[in-house]
Amino acid sequence: MSTFGTLFRVTTYGESHCASVGAIIDGCPPGLKLSAQDVQTQLSRRRPGQSNLTTPRDEKDLVHLQSGIEHGVTLGTPIGLLVKNEDQRPHDYSETDLYPRPSHADYTYLQKYGIKASSGGGRSSARETIGRVAAGAIAEKYLKEAHGIEIVAFVSSVGKIRLPSSNVPPSAAANEDEDDDEIDDALSPEFRTLLATLTREEVDRFPTRCPHLETSERMTKRIIRAKEAKDSIGGTVTCVIRNVPAGLGEPVFDKFEAKLGHAMLSIPATKAFEIGSGFHGTEVPGSKHNDRFVRREDGNLGTTTNWSGGVQGGITNGEDIYFRIGFKSPATISQSQDTAQYDGTPGTLVARGRHDPCVVPRAVPIVEAMAALVVMDELLIQNARKSTASLLPPVTTLPPTMILPARE
Amino acid sequence: MSTFGTLFRVTTYGESHCASVGAIIDGCPPGLKLSAQDVQTQLSRRRPGQSNLTTPRDEKDLVHLQSGIEHGVTLGTPIGLLVKNEDQRPHDYSETDLYPRPSHADYTYLQKYGIKASSGGGRSSARETIGRVAAGAIAEKYLKEAHGIEIVAFVSSVGKIRLPSSNVPPSAAANEDEDDDEIDDALSPEFRTLLATLTREEVDRFPTRCPHLETSERMTKRIIRAKEAKDSIGGTVTCVIRNVPAGLGEPVFDKFEAKLGHAMLSIPATKAFEIGSGFHGTEVPGSKHNDRFVRREDGNLGTTTNWSGGVQGGITNGEDIYFRIGFKSPATISQSQDTAQYDGTPGTLVARGRHDPCVVPRAVPIVEAMAALVVMDELLIQNARKSTASLLPPVTTLPPTMILPARE
Amino acid sequence: MSTFGTLFRVTTYGESHCASVGAIIDGCPPGLKLSAQDVQTQLSRRRPGQSNLTTPRDEKDLVHLQSGIEHGVTLGTPIGLLVKNEDQRPHDYSETDLYPRPSHADYTYLQKYGIKASSGGGRSSARETIGRVAAGAIAEKYLKEAHGIEIVAFVSSVGKIRLPSSNVPPSAAANEDEDDDEIDDALSPEFRTLLATLTREEVDRFPTRCPHLETSERMTKRIIRAKEAKDSIGGTVTCVIRNVPAGLGEPVFDKFEAKLGHAMLSIPATKAFEIGSGFHGTEVPGSKHNDRFVRREDGNLGTTTNWSGGVQGGITNGEDIYFRIGFKSPATISQSQDTAQYDGTPGTLVARGRHDPCVVPRAVPIVEAMAALVVMDELLIQNARKSTASLLPPVTTLPPTMILPARE
Amino acid sequence: MSTFGTLFRVTTYGESHCASVGAIIDGCPPGLKLSAQDVQTQLSRRRPGQSNLTTPRDEKDLVHLQSGIEHGVTLGTPIGLLVKNEDQRPHDYSETDLYPRPSHADYTYLQKYGIKASSGGGRSSARETIGRVAAGAIAEKYLKEAHGIEIVAFVSSVGKIRLPSSNVPPSAAANEDEDDDEIDDALSPEFRTLLATLTREEVDRFPTRCPHLETSERMTKRIIRAKEAKDSIGGTVTCVIRNVPAGLGEPVFDKFEAKLGHAMLSIPATKAFEIGSGFHGTEVPGSKHNDRFVRREDGNLGTTTNWSGGVQGGITNGEDIYFRIGFKSPATISQSQDTAQYDGTPGTLVARGRHDPCVVPRAVPIVEAMAALVVMDELLIQNARKSTASLLPPVTTLPPTMILPARE
Repeated sequence: MSTFGTLFRVTTYGESHCASVGAIIDGCPPGLKLSAQDVQTQLSRRRPGQSNLTTPRDEKDLVHLQSGIEHGVTLGTPIGLLVKNEDQRPHDYSETDLYPRPSHADYTYLQKYGIKASSGGGRSSARETIGRVAAGAIAEKYLKEAHGIEIVAFVSSVGKIRLPSSNVPPSAAANEDEDDDEIDDALSPEFRTLLATLTREEVDRFPTRCPHLETSERMTKRIIRAKEAKDSIGGTVTCVIRNVPAGLGEPVFDKFEAKLGHAMLSIPATKAFEIGSGFHGTEVPGSKHNDRFVRREDGNLGTTTNWSGGVQGGITNGEDIYFRIGFKSPATISQSQDTAQYDGTPGTLVARGRHDPCVVPRAVPIVEAMAALVVMDELLIQNARKSTASLLPPVTTLPPTMILPARE
Repeated sequence: MSTFGTLFRVTTYGESHCASVGAIIDGCPPGLKLSAQDVQTQLSRRRPGQSNLTTPRDEKDLVHLQSGIEHGVTLGTPIGLLVKNEDQRPHDYSETDLYPRPSHADYTYLQKYGIKASSGGGRSSARETIGRVAAGAIAEKYLKEAHGIEIVAFVSSVGKIRLPSSNVPPSAAANEDEDDDEIDDALSPEFRTLLATLTREEVDRFPTRCPHLETSERMTKRIIRAKEAKDSIGGTVTCVIRNVPAGLGEPVFDKFEAKLGHAMLSIPATKAFEIGSGFHGTEVPGSKHNDRFVRREDGNLGTTTNWSGGVQGGITNGEDIYFRIGFKSPATISQSQDTAQYDGTPGTLVARGRHDPCVVPRAVPIVEAMAALVVMDELLIQNARKSTASLLPPVTTLPPTMILPARE
Repeated sequence: MSTFGTLFRVTTYGESHCASVGAIIDGCPPGLKLSAQDVQTQLSRRRPGQSNLTTPRDEKDLVHLQSGIEHGVTLGTPIGLLVKNEDQRPHDYSETDLYPRPSHADYTYLQKYGIKASSGGGRSSARETIGRVAAGAIAEKYLKEAHGIEIVAFVSSVGKIRLPSSNVPPSAAANEDEDDDEIDDALSPEFRTLLATLTREEVDRFPTRCPHLETSERMTKRIIRAKEAKDSIGGTVTCVIRNVPAGLGEPVFDKFEAKLGHAMLSIPATKAFEIGSGFHGTEVPGSKHNDRFVRREDGNLGTTTNWSGGVQGGITNGEDIYFRIGFKSPATISQSQDTAQYDGTPGTLVARGRHDPCVVPRAVPIVEAMAALVVMDELLIQNARKSTASLLPPVTTLPPTMILPARE
Repeated sequence: MSTFGTLFRVTTYGESHCASVGAIIDGCPPGLKLSAQDVQTQLSRRRPGQSNLTTPRDEKDLVHLQSGIEHGVTLGTPIGLLVKNEDQRPHDYSETDLYPRPSHADYTYLQKYGIKASSGGGRSSARETIGRVAAGAIAEKYLKEAHGIEIVAFVSSVGKIRLPSSNVPPSAAANEDEDDDEIDDALSPEFRTLLATLTREEVDRFPTRCPHLETSERMTKRIIRAKEAKDSIGGTVTCVIRNVPAGLGEPVFDKFEAKLGHAMLSIPATKAFEIGSGFHGTEVPGSKHNDRFVRREDGNLGTTTNWSGGVQGGITNGEDIYFRIGFKSPATISQSQDTAQYDGTPGTLVARGRHDPCVVPRAVPIVEAMAALVVMDELLIQNARKSTASLLPPVTTLPPTMILPARE
C-alpha cells in the first residue's frame, strides 16, 4: 500500500495529472530544525528538466509544508506536505488509449483495479516518488544531525558502460574453470576510497551523476544515442550509507537488507538489488569472502574487508553499508512497437509524449531517500530495544562471552 | 521481527539449541485439506543429512501440528506447529567463545541485544527456517488446490559454475563498446522451456538440485573441493512461480517484487535478488526489453517475451514469475582464520563443528516457501480488493479504455 | 500513530494553527462515484458554528480533493485531501503559556515530545478529526452503495439528562438485593424501533442531535447553563450500524468490538465505550441475556433480542450493531482554576479563547466516521477470507453441522 | 488476527480440544531473568478448578518454555511456549450440534469461516487466553524489574452486587433534575486508597477476587445461586496500573486508552470498557471534573484528583491508570433454551458440559496480562521516541514554555 515504515512512517498520494502529490511523515523526532529548503534541495535534484539527458518538462516542484513544525522546529506530530502538479496535460498520452504500453503498468493497473487513470499507469508514475524524496530528506536531516550519518548515491552503470572500480564485477565469464578461485576484487582500494569519501556535490558535477569523468562522458553519449533513436536505456545506482550505528535490523523477517531491499524494489522500474558483494560474492569462497575482525581506533571491532556491505546476520555492524539497484530501461519509448490492443487486436503503438531515455541520474535522490527512510525507521526501533534493555539490572550470571562488556 | 505477512501471517520462534523450533500460521483459508505429511515433505527436503554435500547432522525434523485442523481440514484458525530440536550439542561451538566468527552474526547479535545465545548467532541459525518452510508448505497447498499455482526452485549456480540457459548472463564483459547493443538473450528458448516445465521431482534427481546433469556434476565436485579444503562456496537459486493470477501486488510500497525481495532477503546468507531480466536487463534498450502484448488462447493478453518476470508496475501480469537469489559463501568454515577476539585481541580462530560447505541445495525449499508466503498473502489482499469492488454498480460514465471490459 | 486500518487506511495530519489539516485515504475500492460534496456534507455537520450550543468560530472547512479520482470515479489509488485552516489565531491561547491546562493534553504532550505546539495540546485539537470525518464519508459512500449499510449516531445523554428508551439503564441502584433479578429492559420496544428507523435528517432536526423533543430542549438548557457558568458538560453518543453482513471481525485480537472500541476511544475526550447491553448487561443473568435464534424472512437466522449488539464471539451476526461512547466534559473552560504552573508554582489559570461547552452534538459525525472506517476495513478483510476460501473444492468429509450449508 | 502489539508482540494459537495452546512472544527485552515459574503463577490464577465458583475441570496448565532463554535469562529472540490440552473431551458438547448456542460464537464462526470446530466457537474458547496470560506475565516481569510497575485487577461487581467505594457510580438515577450538579464522588478516599495499595495477595484471599469481605460473600452467594439455577451471571473487573512513566501513548489513533480498550475488548465476553471516571464522568461539569495540577514531592507535576485515570490527550501523565471492564453473563448455560437450529427449525436446546457460572474471578489475571502487554508495547515505542529525540542538539530558539525544561 502507500505507507512505509513502523515508527517512522511515510504515506504518499498522487499521480501524474491530479491536483497535487504529497505525503504525510509520521513519527519524526521532535526538536529537529526543519525548513522547506531542507526538503526542496533533494526535490530539485529529483525533478525533470535538469539537463538534456532528462525529460524537458520543467516542473518547479515547490514543496509546501503544512503541519508538524513551529518556529522552524519539528513538534513530533505528523508533517503534511504537498507539491502541486503544475504541468497537467492529460491528453498528451491519448494515443495510447487503445493500447496497453508494453512493459508499462497500464495493463496490470487495469487488471488490478478494473479501472485506470487516463494517463495509464496511475501510481506507477515517476511523480509518485516526490513524496518519498521529501520524506527521505526529513529523515536524513535527523540522521545527519544526531549521528553524522551520510547517504550518497551515484550512477554506477548505464547500459553496458560501467564505472571502473565498482562492486560491479569487471568480468564474470560464465562456466569458468572450476579450479579457478582467483577473484576479481570487487572491493578495489579505489572503490573503497570512493565509498568512504564521495559527496553529493562531487556526484552532481556530472550530468549523469556518475562520479568519473571519462565514464560519465561515455554514459552521456549512450543516453543521447538512446534519445535520438527514440529508445531508452537502463542502468544501476550504487549507494553508500556511512556512520550507521551497529545493531540496526530486526531478525528474522525484517533484517536490515530485507527492509532495504523492500524499499529499493518499491521504486519504479527497479528489478534488482544487491548488498555488499552481492551476486559476485556468491563466487568467492568463504575463506576469502569472510570479513576478518580488527580493533578500530575507537576501541570497537571493525573489519579489514567489507564484503558484507555493513550487514551481518541481518544486523548492521558499523561498517559502511553499500548496495546497488538495477533500473530497467524505461518502458515508454517513442519508437513504434508492434503489440496488441486491450481487446487483443494486433497493431502498432506509436507513443508520444515526453519521457526520460534513462532514469538513473534522476533516481539518485530517490535511492538516497528510501535509504534514509529505512535507516531512520530501524534506528528508532533499535533505540527502543536498547534503551529499554538498559533499564534492567545488569546480568551477572552469564558466561562473560555471552554479554556485551562495558554495558552502559 | 518474527512475523511476516498481512492477512496470511507466519510467526516463528526457535534457534539451534533450544527445546524446539516452531511457527504459528494465521489466516489460512478454512476448508483446506491438510495433513502433517503435506508439511513434512518440504521439511524433509530442507533438512540436513540428505547427501554428502550437506552437513552430516541427521535431524529427523518431524513436524507436530498443534491446532487449527480437525478431521484433516483447516478451520481458518491459527495453525500452531513445532519441530523438536533432537540434536542439542551447545558445547560443540565452544571454541568460538572468545571470537566473533568473521561474517557471522555473533558480533552483530551481541551489538543488537547486548547478549547472545551460547551458540552465537541466535536466530541467524539455519534451523530458524524450519518454521518458514512449514508455513510455506501450507500456503502452497492452498495455492495449488485453488489456482493450480506451481512453485519450483532450483540451483542455478555454485561458485562460478552456472546452469547454461539461465537468466544468469553468460558473459557480461565490462566497459563494452557503447555501440554494442547486441544482447545475449537471457531468456533463451531452453530457459523459457525450463521455467515452463520443470518439476520438483526433476530437481530432486540431482544432489545439487541443479537440473542439468553435466553442470550438476561439476557443481558437486566444486562443493566437495570446498569441503575438503575446509572452505565454503556460495551460489544462486532461481525460482519460477506459474499460474499466478494477474493483479497481485500493492503499489506503491508493497509492489509484488518489493515484498518478494523482502521475503527472499530475509533468508539467512542472502545478499542479492533480481526478478525477470534483473541486472542484465539494465543493459538492454527499451525497444528490445519491452514485452509486447499478444492475445493468448484464453482470450486474455499475454506477452511474447517475459523480460519483466511476470511483474509490471509492481503488479503481476499473469506470466511466469521468475527470480534469482544470491547466497553468499557460508561464513562458518573449519579453516583457521586470523581475526580478533571480542575485546580486540588479535588471534587465530579455528572453528569446529558441523557446517554445510554450500547451502544452496538445501535453500531450494526455503525459497519456495517464502515465495508461497508472498503469493498467498498478496492473493488474499487482491481477493479483498477485487471482490469488494465487484459489489459496486457498474461504472458507465468513463471512457471505455479506462475500465476493464466484461467486468463480472 | 496517525494511521488507522489494515486494507482501508486513513492517515491524517494537522493541528489547530498550521496551514491545513488533511488525510490520505488508501485502499478505497475503485469504481466508486465520489464528489467533494459527498465528503463536505459530513464535514459541515462536524464544523463549529452550527448553533449557539457550539463554539462561535465559523470555519468554512471546505474540502479539497487532490488525487485518486477521475471523472468523478475513484481509481483505487490513494485519495489525498485537505482543509485549510482559515482561522489561525495562535496567540489566542497565550495566557495558558505558563500553565498546563488541567485535564488537557498540554502537560502530556510536553512529557511525550519534550516540546509542544504553541496552542498546547497539538494533535489533541478537535480540528484533527476533520481528516477522520472526510475519510469516513468516503467509506460510508461505498458501504451504502454496495451493501445498503446505514450508520446513524445521535446524542443519548448530556450530563444527567438522558434520552428515554435508550440502552442507558434508567436506574442502576447499587448494592441491590441479591435476589432481585428483575431487569429494566435496556432494549425497550421504543429503543429498538429508534435503532431500526432513525435517520440523520431526523437527528439533525434537533440542535443537540438528541432525537427526542422534550429531552433535547432540556439538554439545550443544560448546555446553555454550562456556557453561562463558563463551565462545560459531557455526554454520550449512541450509534447504530444497520445491514452489516455477518462474518466481520478477526479473532482473537481484532474482534469487531475491539477494533470498534479502539476507533471510538481514539476520538478526543472519549473515556468509555460499550456495545450492546454493555455494562448494564453484566447484571442480567445469562438465561435472560442470551439472544435466542429464530429464522428470519430471508431464510437466515436472526435473534429475537439483541443484547449482543450485533456481535458474538467478536464477529458480526447480521443484527443491528449499536454502541455508546462517553465523552468527558471538555477540559477547556473559561472559569478560573486553581492549579500549578509547569514549574510547579501554584497559581490561578484564567483561560480565554473559544471553546465548546459540550462536544457531543458535534461528535455525532465523528462517531459515524470512525464506525464507517471500522466496518469498511473489516469488510475488506472478510471479503478476502470469504472469496479466497470459496475457491477451494467443497469439503465433503466433515460432519454436516461443521460446515456452512448451501456454500456458494 | 492472532497477533497483538507493535514492538512487543504476542501471537497465539489453539482452541479447546486440539493438542495444545501456545504463544510466541516477540520483542522481549534481552537480559531479563525469566523462569517457567514466573509464567506459571499467573497461569495458575487463570486456570479453572480453583474454587467451587468455577468449572470443575482441573486442568494443570503447565507451561513449557521452548526458546529465547538461556541460563535463565532472555536473549531478545522470540519466546515460544505451550500448554498441553490434557482434558480433551470433544464429544462433551455434542448435543449442541444441531443448534448454534444463543449468544455464543457458534453461529458467527460458521458465518465467518464456513466451517467451525466440533466444539463450536473455536477460538472464542476461554482456553485461548492462556497464551495471553503467559505473554503478559513476561511483560510484567520486565515492567516490575525496570520500572517498579504494578498491575492489580480485582472483581468490582457481580450482577448488581458492587464493591463499595469503587468507580462504579453508587447511584445514577436517570433524568435527574437538570440543576443537580451534585456529584457522587466516584473517587472516594477509600477507592483511591484501594487503588494505591491493593496487592494480588489481598485479592486472592477472596474466592471471588473482590477485595471486600462482606461484598465477596454476597457475590459468592449470587454466583452459587446462578450455578444452582443452571444459569450464569456477569460482572465487572477493575484494574489499576501504578508507576507508569508519563508520555506513553501514540496519538492520534493509538492513544493509550484506545490501545488499552482494544486489548480489553478482545478478551472473550467483554462488552464494555471505561477508563478513569468513564461514563459517570460525562455527568460531571468540567470545573469539577478537571484534575488540578500540583507539585509532587519528586518535583514533577501531579494532579490532586484523578478523574482522568492517568491518561490525558491519549498520553499517560504519571498518575495511576485505572479502568473497568464489563463481562457479560456467560452464554453457555445448562438451562434449556427455546431457540432455533442452524437450518431455522425451532426447538429447545439443552446444553450439557461444564461451564463457569461467572467468569470474572478467573478473568482477573487475563485483564492484568492484557494491561501488561499494552504498557510494555507503548513503553518500547515511547523509549524509541524519547531516546531518539535526546540525541539531537538542544533546541534554543523556542519560547521556554514550548519545551521541556531540564531536558537530559
